[in-house]
Amino acid sequence: MRFLIILVSLLTLNFSNSQTSQENSVFIDKIYDEALSNGKSYEWLDYLSNQIGGRLSGSINYERSVKWGKEELNLLEIDSVWLQPVMVPKWVRGAPEYAHIETRPGNNISVPIVALGGSISTPSIGISANIVEVKSFKELRDIGRDSISGKIVFFNRPMDVTLINTFQAYSGSVNQRTQGAVQAAKLGAVGVIVRSMTTTLDNYPHTGSMYYEGLSISQRIPAAAISTNGAELLSSMLSLNPKIKFFFRQNSRNFPDVLNHTVIGEITGSEKPDEIIVVGGHLDSWDLGDGSHDDGAGIVQSMEVLRIFKSLDYIPKRTIRVVLFANEENGLRGGNKYSEVAKLKNEKHFFAIESDAGGFTPRGISFDTSDTEFKSLKKFEKYFNDYGVSFLQGGSGADIGPLKDGNIILAGLRPDPQRYFDYHHAASDTFDKINKRELELGAATMASIVYLMDNYKL
Amino acid sequence: MRFLIILVSLLTLNFSNSQTSQENSVFIDKIYDEALSNGKSYEWLDYLSNQIGGRLSGSINYERSVKWGKEELNLLEIDSVWLQPVMVPKWVRGAPEYAHIETRPGNNISVPIVALGGSISTPSIGISANIVEVKSFKELRDIGRDSISGKIVFFNRPMDVTLINTFQAYSGSVNQRTQGAVQAAKLGAVGVIVRSMTTTLDNYPHTGSMYYEGLSISQRIPAAAISTNGAELLSSMLSLNPKIKFFFRQNSRNFPDVLNHTVIGEITGSEKPDEIIVVGGHLDSWDLGDGSHDDGAGIVQSMEVLRIFKSLDYIPKRTIRVVLFANEENGLRGGNKYSEVAKLKNEKHFFAIESDAGGFTPRGISFDTSDTEFKSLKKFEKYFNDYGVSFLQGGSGADIGPLKDGNIILAGLRPDPQRYFDYHHAASDTFDKINKRELELGAATMASIVYLMDNYKL
Repeated sequence: MRFLIILVSLLTLNFSNSQTSQENSVFIDKIYDEALSNGKSYEWLDYLSNQIGGRLSGSINYERSVKWGKEELNLLEIDSVWLQPVMVPKWVRGAPEYAHIETRPGNNISVPIVALGGSISTPSIGISANIVEVKSFKELRDIGRDSISGKIVFFNRPMDVTLINTFQAYSGSVNQRTQGAVQAAKLGAVGVIVRSMTTTLDNYPHTGSMYYEGLSISQRIPAAAISTNGAELLSSMLSLNPKIKFFFRQNSRNFPDVLNHTVIGEITGSEKPDEIIVVGGHLDSWDLGDGSHDDGAGIVQSMEVLRIFKSLDYIPKRTIRVVLFANEENGLRGGNKYSEVAKLKNEKHFFAIESDAGGFTPRGISFDTSDTEFKSLKKFEKYFNDYGVSFLQGGSGADIGPLKDGNIILAGLRPDPQRYFDYHHAASDTFDKINKRELELGAATMASIVYLMDNYKL
Repeated sequence: MRFLIILVSLLTLNFSNSQTSQENSVFIDKIYDEALSNGKSYEWLDYLSNQIGGRLSGSINYERSVKWGKEELNLLEIDSVWLQPVMVPKWVRGAPEYAHIETRPGNNISVPIVALGGSISTPSIGISANIVEVKSFKELRDIGRDSISGKIVFFNRPMDVTLINTFQAYSGSVNQRTQGAVQAAKLGAVGVIVRSMTTTLDNYPHTGSMYYEGLSISQRIPAAAISTNGAELLSSMLSLNPKIKFFFRQNSRNFPDVLNHTVIGEITGSEKPDEIIVVGGHLDSWDLGDGSHDDGAGIVQSMEVLRIFKSLDYIPKRTIRVVLFANEENGLRGGNKYSEVAKLKNEKHFFAIESDAGGFTPRGISFDTSDTEFKSLKKFEKYFNDYGVSFLQGGSGADIGPLKDGNIILAGLRPDPQRYFDYHHAASDTFDKINKRELELGAATMASIVYLMDNYKL
């Protein structure tokens, strides 16, 4: 029997090292067919979104999502599933926020706001003050302390709707949200209102992280996002009468760090078990919607990669690890911890891909690697021609970013970006905004590139 | 002064004949910026969908949409706007349809159906009969007259969800809807139930055209679409008990042809006014939803092309004509009439593009032209790289198809096709399914290719 075993091993080895273009195409077709015919991502996301819902770090819902993720991965009968502990920030929104524009004493127009993640509360009676509109930190500094002190600063620079890549438009505006409070507090402002980061005009305020950086506790001021329609209204009213007052009240609070977990599952590699391929997204979300696009989609697509491999009886050569990262939104603690542990254990990560840009039709895979490596990878692009997916150089994903070490090839799934910021961090990020086929195509795209990378440079 | 005028004319002429790549890029950027910043397509579609609604040929709503289209084009202050008369079929759905599966006498499970466009009514008391499920015309013929006669035929071949291009999947199934009644009637069936043409599993029946072809009036049988969930249920119940009965009732009716109009507007060309470029979509829709994607989107995108040119002070060299075609859905009379009149008038059509595949993110422009011409046009593809739009060879649009004559270059806008058949011809094709940016990007893509074609081969 030994002879036969050796022969079979040799044949298997030979096959695995010399996948032809034709074999790759056939297998990738099978991946897409499986995702579109028997996919489980949509059903999983239905549960995660509608039965669990928003799952902010440190919340009960986050704990429930960890339990769910672990159980579902166990059902896939992969080689191992475990939890990686990580201390995360705990921020709680508290009672619903309220705000109004006071056009004259007793005449108030309410506008929708939400506290920014990490923001302190207002005093329980709220804050009422004159309000100064600015479009940039430079404009804020030019106005200066004398005119800012004691007032609320209203950051109202819209996302640039003419940018086709909405993520680029987001990058161009989001510093108002993340650093606005620090910049305004330094000039004596008593609160900050930020125009929501979205390309639409609607009534949803969009939350997101903000930081106090070096500010002492006594210097900190509360910060909230206002809906874009609310921002337009406020701006109009200010242009009519710069002396109107703004009132807002919020009840948010930061608690000491708590223990959360990143969920990890893997299929051990059959040939190079020590070389790890990561496919992942982040399991936490903001608390307003149910986090279907950000990043429930990335979670179920990543899980689906392993399900597809199991279902097609594909035996990976390298170790394929699905990672459901904790605490991307307000801390990146899960991603940092994962990378820290990997270094401690001297793990070799060969490739990592993250899906954290929504569950829309996949249009590209972005690679963060050397020009030489990208040129070499570019030869795989042909396998995606029929699926409308192209390769580009750029970023990957926040959670896998800390793994960057000069060797690992990092990648990010790039879905169509037009609708993403309609829902991002808002109460409107819900399961009904997900299209089943689009979600499944994203999962198949991830599985296909993971398959190719599993067979790359063996 | 004459000298100056000649000089200016020469300079203008020179510019218009030698657009450089750089000039083209800059102008196309302006087109996209204009569409995304000041676009009117979304506001127009809001009115057409929500204030007028579904606009089947021969209906009052169709007349209202003609009036609206003419008025809006007049407001653009283009050179001329007129109506082209055309006789169209008039089919009326009548009272709401009803259907149930009778598992045993007195035990009925209702399922959602809608009459197919063009279908006759059932008798007023409905039809109750045994039902035979088939997946193809071959299977129907193999079963044969003896087993079909007196029964209802249930065509249940699903759209192939593994096809990435959902239009291809539609083509592979739609003959059940268009020809199912004829095929079944020839074998003595008393009615036809067709699985809805959609890639989703849901409760919306999707209507669409069907034809009796050579069948005499006495041979005609009524045909209806059942929702995909209804089809799955019916199929399951039939597999448990092939003797169950099916009941359906509908009240649809064909009337004599009536007069409708295609709406046409144009900017007369400054250099080659006799060479016509058409940009269009179809103004009619099915009656169930408000026809936002099919084809309200194409209508407002086509109108937007002219608005953008006016707004950017672009003076076309050729005549740019927007055509809001009548009666695409159940007759194609508008497209046929337009082409017939063009031939009678010896009009020279240089280029035509239609948008009739939904208002989603534009991903391609499909050209129906010779290989040589396509190769030459392909050099324009670079202008669309930043907008994620690629060029392909294939079909164009139903309404402009009749213009094909060996000279005209035909084209079709190709939006992302994943969601289209979720809504196609169903009550769910409504304005809330439209994304403003996606719609605007489609309009900008149309305007950009029209601009390039206006300057092509001058």
